[in-house]
Amino acid sequence: MADQAFVTLATNDSYGRGAMVLGKSLRHHNTTKKLVALIGPQMSEPCRSVLKEIFDEVRLVDVLDSGDAAHLAMIKRPDLGVTFTKLHCWTLTHYSKCVFMDADTLVLANIDDLFDREEFSAAPDPGWPDCFNSGVFVFRPSEETHGKLLQYCTEHGSFDGGDQGVLNGFFSDWATADISKHLPFIYNLSSIAIYTYLPAFKQFGGNAKVVHFLGKTKPWSYSYDSKSKQITGNVHEATTHPTFLLDWWSLYSSAVVPMLQEQYGDEPIRSG
Amino acid sequence: MADQAFVTLATNDSYGRGAMVLGKSLRHHNTTKKLVALIGPQMSEPCRSVLKEIFDEVRLVDVLDSGDAAHLAMIKRPDLGVTFTKLHCWTLTHYSKCVFMDADTLVLANIDDLFDREEFSAAPDPGWPDCFNSGVFVFRPSEETHGKLLQYCTEHGSFDGGDQGVLNGFFSDWATADISKHLPFIYNLSSIAIYTYLPAFKQFGGNAKVVHFLGKTKPWSYSYDSKSKQITGNVHEATTHPTFLLDWWSLYSSAVVPMLQEQYGDEPIRSG
Ligand SMILES: O=c1ccn([C@@H]2O[C@H](COP(=O)(O)OP(=O)(O)O)[C@@H](O)[C@H]2O)c(=O)[nH]1
Ligand SMILES: O=c1ccn([C@@H]2O[C@H](COP(=O)(O)OP(=O)(O)O)[C@@H](O)[C@H]2O)c(=O)[nH]1
Ligand SMILES: [Mn+2]
Ligand SMILES: [Mn+2]
Repeated sequence: MADQAFVTLATNDSYGRGAMVLGKSLRHHNTTKKLVALIGPQMSEPCRSVLKEIFDEVRLVDVLDSGDAAHLAMIKRPDLGVTFTKLHCWTLTHYSKCVFMDADTLVLANIDDLFDREEFSAAPDPGWPDCFNSGVFVFRPSEETHGKLLQYCTEHGSFDGGDQGVLNGFFSDWATADISKHLPFIYNLSSIAIYTYLPAFKQFGGNAKVVHFLGKTKPWSYSYDSKSKQITGNVHEATTHPTFLLDWWSLYSSAVVPMLQEQYGDEPIRSG
Repeated sequence: MADQAFVTLATNDSYGRGAMVLGKSLRHHNTTKKLVALIGPQMSEPCRSVLKEIFDEVRLVDVLDSGDAAHLAMIKRPDLGVTFTKLHCWTLTHYSKCVFMDADTLVLANIDDLFDREEFSAAPDPGWPDCFNSGVFVFRPSEETHGKLLQYCTEHGSFDGGDQGVLNGFFSDWATADISKHLPFIYNLSSIAIYTYLPAFKQFGGNAKVVHFLGKTKPWSYSYDSKSKQITGNVHEATTHPTFLLDWWSLYSSAVVPMLQEQYGDEPIRSG
């Protein structure tokens, strides 16, 4: 059986920090799968080096520099920049099956069982639950699918301007076709859900396997005092659950910051 | 084939107004099914009369007055008052299949196709989408199921204090077992979803078949100027979509108010 991999994407140093924490969280929960990071050309050298230590494969993707279909597609839809980059994950054909995870996700338990699922599996999006959330999904790399996705993208665009709109348009029978392609919500628990239906979070949230810090404010938007182990500054309870935010920061400060310090030496670490 | 029915519940005059609008909206969209309203003893006589004109069957349910299992269950769990009353719908065994609809729902299209579905079918809840929302569901009346539900209710209670928690606990394989039991979200579109993921609403909301005014503020909490055809007072956009709210009020003022006026005569109409 060909290899299987978790794949993430970080086009810049900020999302790079997210990718580092995600990678570390997968390792801490003893994944047996490969780890792949797709990075953008804006990412600094020290960040690339740290990612290379954590991930098995770090691959530079830049749709604008390539002379292929993605490039042509991109010219027609310049608004869908990061989306085109995310779709790049389908080109990782040296893996037979992959799980894509947003760089703003954090793994709380071993989730290798996701590889028992088939393309295209994803968890429902709170908000409009007949759409899936595209922060965690199971897929099969394939040049053919990649080509079709790009074509769909240029022809129909994205109803939400991002990859989630494109992917929901393309895999449009997700809501109605096959229950096994519905990942349990605890594999992509967006912090937003916690406040919309708190009793359900209290009932089921203890089993959370992946938390997704979706929305504008990311974990790295906050500051952290590593001595008192507390988030400093304005914590908007409405966007992120304090416990998960602390989990992210404690992993970042214990496992990622030392690696960044080694790379940057005496230079101050760029916040991205 | 035995009869099929839409069933709603209204324990008081406020929810009664909701039930009237729901019943009228089902009739306007030419349902061929029976309409049943379960009412509570608090409901005023004029409201009962209007409901009897709109619905085929108006049935008084009062778990506290009955000497049966529901009563015994109720004594152990007095906190679950309205929940026990809602579960009463399973006792309507003169129908072979029913669709329960909250009194705060409004039908925008013929939805008789819901009767092609089996027990237990419901739409996902935005917020915690591995739970279904209990505002619209397909069920098979059965004394046996009713008994089991009451038993479950007393033994496990409700994780959210209401019928949704009980029903999700009882029909706990809904998220994983059978995709055909997932009603499309447009059969129970909660206004809350509109603001959480607006692009999806813009894309799919035009096909809405049932809107559900869930949450504290109900359509009847607002006021309406029937001359200017506008909602007066504080319209919290965050809880209810203005268009759907106007739909509710325009049906209420054109089809329900005249019936209430006839019943109340010169008396002022109680707001419930
Ligand atoms: O400038 C960006 C924006 C996004 N992303 C990647 O695209 C994903 C989706 O974006 P985001 O998580 O910000 O969207 P949300 O989940 O908040 O909708 C991120 O997690 C990253 O993996 C990126 O690398 N650079
Ligand atoms: O005092 C009450 C509360 C609720 N209900 C019924 O129970 C349903 C569920 O309650 P509600 O719609 O208020 O809950 P939500 O949908 O906002 O969670 C209502 O639609 C009514 O049918 C009722 O008859 N009387
Ligand atoms: Mn994300
Ligand atoms: Mn309701």
